[in-house]
Amino acid sequence: MSPATAKTPDVSRRSERSRKAILRASMELVGDVGYPKLTIEAIAARAGVGKQTIYRWWPSKAAVLLDAFTEVVHDDDYQGGLPDTGDIEADLKTVLRATADEFSDAAFEAPYRALAVASAADAALAEQFVARLQEPGLEVYVRRLRAGQEAGQIDPGLDLGLAVEMLLGPFQQRWLTRSGPLTHEFTDRLVEMALRSFAPRG
Amino acid sequence: MSPATAKTPDVSRRSERSRKAILRASMELVGDVGYPKLTIEAIAARAGVGKQTIYRWWPSKAAVLLDAFTEVVHDDDYQGGLPDTGDIEADLKTVLRATADEFSDAAFEAPYRALAVASAADAALAEQFVARLQEPGLEVYVRRLRAGQEAGQIDPGLDLGLAVEMLLGPFQQRWLTRSGPLTHEFTDRLVEMALRSFAPRG
Repeated sequence: MSPATAKTPDVSRRSERSRKAILRASMELVGDVGYPKLTIEAIAARAGVGKQTIYRWWPSKAAVLLDAFTEVVHDDDYQGGLPDTGDIEADLKTVLRATADEFSDAAFEAPYRALAVASAADAALAEQFVARLQEPGLEVYVRRLRAGQEAGQIDPGLDLGLAVEMLLGPFQQRWLTRSGPLTHEFTDRLVEMALRSFAPRG
Repeated sequence: MSPATAKTPDVSRRSERSRKAILRASMELVGDVGYPKLTIEAIAARAGVGKQTIYRWWPSKAAVLLDAFTEVVHDDDYQGGLPDTGDIEADLKTVLRATADEFSDAAFEAPYRALAVASAADAALAEQFVARLQEPGLEVYVRRLRAGQEAGQIDPGLDLGLAVEMLLGPFQQRWLTRSGPLTHEFTDRLVEMALRSFAPRG
């Protein structure tokens, strides 16, 4: 009954329902118990499937979780890229405000923190976390800044990768260390401060 | 034999030796086993003291570790503030290069990562971590930027707290997620990019 051998619409639908139930269960559970105590058995029980179903599709709990977060990211409003109204300051403020709201939602925040903590502690998991989630997330910002360069709003010589680290690093750091609130006031000031650096040299 | 009741130079010296051995043992151990598995018993054994000696001076393993890191920070080269040669770009580059070197030293990096990971997972520990270590660390940067304002090299309207988050957030984030190397090239570009934002408005 794996997706690859599914032959009929009914079997496909059941597989897809199980897959989604497993991914949802993994996110809920990791937010509740943390990554070290997360088990395939517990995910299977919460999803209402046998644990062999999970092992057939994923090699490890890390693989399940990374798929779960990848799905959330792909389902989000910015799958096709960041908004481009022609006003880069307004667009970045819109996106960072929405991101601040997402990180204030416990249903997203708790599992994402559990995964971030586990990655910080575990270099092998970190490599997957960065490649599967963080880098694709940064890449949509790089593309938006590149469009800003083409529109003459961003310095043509700017190192876009480093620029995105400068824009998002303070947000991620404040979130992870809880050193300050993720308000819209904070994200707006962050965008303004970063764009002062990114602007074309006069 | 606690420091408060020590009456003779010999007793004071023994207390101070024990105190330093305990702090050193706590840092070595947390780097080896991680914060969740760190115990007062193991710290006592490695330091060669009875565990009651530790309990007499500290209420918890978190308190021991925070004291250990506070001591490291106080002993470092920038205890009295960041260098001020009058050239803020050169001074920030010097300090961030030294910080990158420190974070490449496993004897510092492993225990600091263990504490950062534990703080990210535990809001109560995070509050102490931020208040005891992170905020004092940021404050020396705020003071250096303020001196730069007085010297006319930094915009007088700059939000210095947010500016320091922008300067250090990308470094901390790259370190914690291992998303890129902490080279001098990286820290130099970071300083240059940040100072473009912080410069007086033309």
